[in-house]
Amino acid sequence: MVNVVVLGTGNVAYHFIKGFENINDVDVIQIYNHNSTSLQPFTSYETTTRFSELKKADLYLICVKDDKILEVASAIPFYENAIVAHVSGSVPLLETKHNDAVFYPLQTFSKDKAISFKDLPLCIEAEHTDQFKFLKEIGECLNAKVYEVNSNQRQELHLAAVFVCNFVNHLYHIGHTICEEKNLPFDILKPLVQETADKVLTKHPKDAQTGPAKRNDESTIERHIEQLIDSPYKDLYRYLTSSIQNTYE
Amino acid sequence: MVNVVVLGTGNVAYHFIKGFENINDVDVIQIYNHNSTSLQPFTSYETTTRFSELKKADLYLICVKDDKILEVASAIPFYENAIVAHVSGSVPLLETKHNDAVFYPLQTFSKDKAISFKDLPLCIEAEHTDQFKFLKEIGECLNAKVYEVNSNQRQELHLAAVFVCNFVNHLYHIGHTICEEKNLPFDILKPLVQETADKVLTKHPKDAQTGPAKRNDESTIERHIEQLIDSPYKDLYRYLTSSIQNTYE
Repeated sequence: MVNVVVLGTGNVAYHFIKGFENINDVDVIQIYNHNSTSLQPFTSYETTTRFSELKKADLYLICVKDDKILEVASAIPFYENAIVAHVSGSVPLLETKHNDAVFYPLQTFSKDKAISFKDLPLCIEAEHTDQFKFLKEIGECLNAKVYEVNSNQRQELHLAAVFVCNFVNHLYHIGHTICEEKNLPFDILKPLVQETADKVLTKHPKDAQTGPAKRNDESTIERHIEQLIDSPYKDLYRYLTSSIQNTYE
Repeated sequence: MVNVVVLGTGNVAYHFIKGFENINDVDVIQIYNHNSTSLQPFTSYETTTRFSELKKADLYLICVKDDKILEVASAIPFYENAIVAHVSGSVPLLETKHNDAVFYPLQTFSKDKAISFKDLPLCIEAEHTDQFKFLKEIGECLNAKVYEVNSNQRQELHLAAVFVCNFVNHLYHIGHTICEEKNLPFDILKPLVQETADKVLTKHPKDAQTGPAKRNDESTIERHIEQLIDSPYKDLYRYLTSSIQNTYE
């Protein structure tokens, strides 16, 4: 049995705790947050707001904001064989007194939407091979897909994730806004959203590119810009169009 | 039985022809293209390269490039009850001698990937109610989801589609490029691509927004821009970041 203390109560913490509930080999023995209100949803667990009360565990999983990770790691009491892993895509492997590691799930989490750990990419980095293997086994218990990813690669992945998730979602928002203004249901765009995402499962995105920018259809591009005359997204349209044209010229 | 002549042999024509093959009530009686080579994949159909040889039909479906639609429509012989429909998102309802209509499938098509017409949004516009009903029935035979959409709304949908499909695909391409440069498999990003698209099926994209731009995480944004120092996508990162920040400020 692996004993885990989870530090933090945000989306990632929440989903890891739920994920560990479904497997027998891992036991969340304690949840920490500095704020007791945030601990209220976890009443079925032992909780604490004090570092001095942290229990001895095999793994301390730090799920706090990036700028608090080092502070939290430093406050965890030292146990020789314990692993202290953070779950951030952008913070490098720490260099503390602990056995430092990273256990980064490359996914977007919302509290109100269940996430399956099955095939979820889990990017693991550890100071020593044994610790990597230990974390890999936990990942495999969750049915996740484990990748060994170093700090530099992880930062690049995090950047790539901003493009394919955060920025993509913003474009969905723009599509939603255009529909709303013309009294059209966003539902009408959903099959297109799905198919566009499905296509790149099997096709190189460069080969999947279509549209007026790709085919240099200047009359359609000009009309679109006219349609956007009063929109805050007009320049973004221009910018994305140029970027596509530069990519395929 | 509805007799259809399809004009054009591109992706949309191809998928409509395949779709009509699966239903009993519609018969593609002829396929036209000005170029005989393009007709070669359709040897099981009657084909022609001449407008003068076009057969009498209930529906002429014009699936050619936007700038050729009017020319093709004008060349179709006049039959009192025939409907002449184009399939373009951006060209308005024509005003020719025919019963003009639009039969616009809001989806991205590739020749090498089968498309299900089930629940595919089909945006129909017609000069008269009877013709709308007639086209709606054909759409329903295909199991498509029929919407009545006028020319102005359709142009806005086409613009929205550029954001949620063409521009989104370009962001996938950028993610792919970043992975490639760091010897990381693009597979590692695919679950994130899927989940990001799945989220907006049930959640307003504005509520689904996450990431450094949304939370004004300037230190991560600056590090990302440093990572992109030699990339052609640095300015695009800045631009999308500002656009998100302006949306949520």
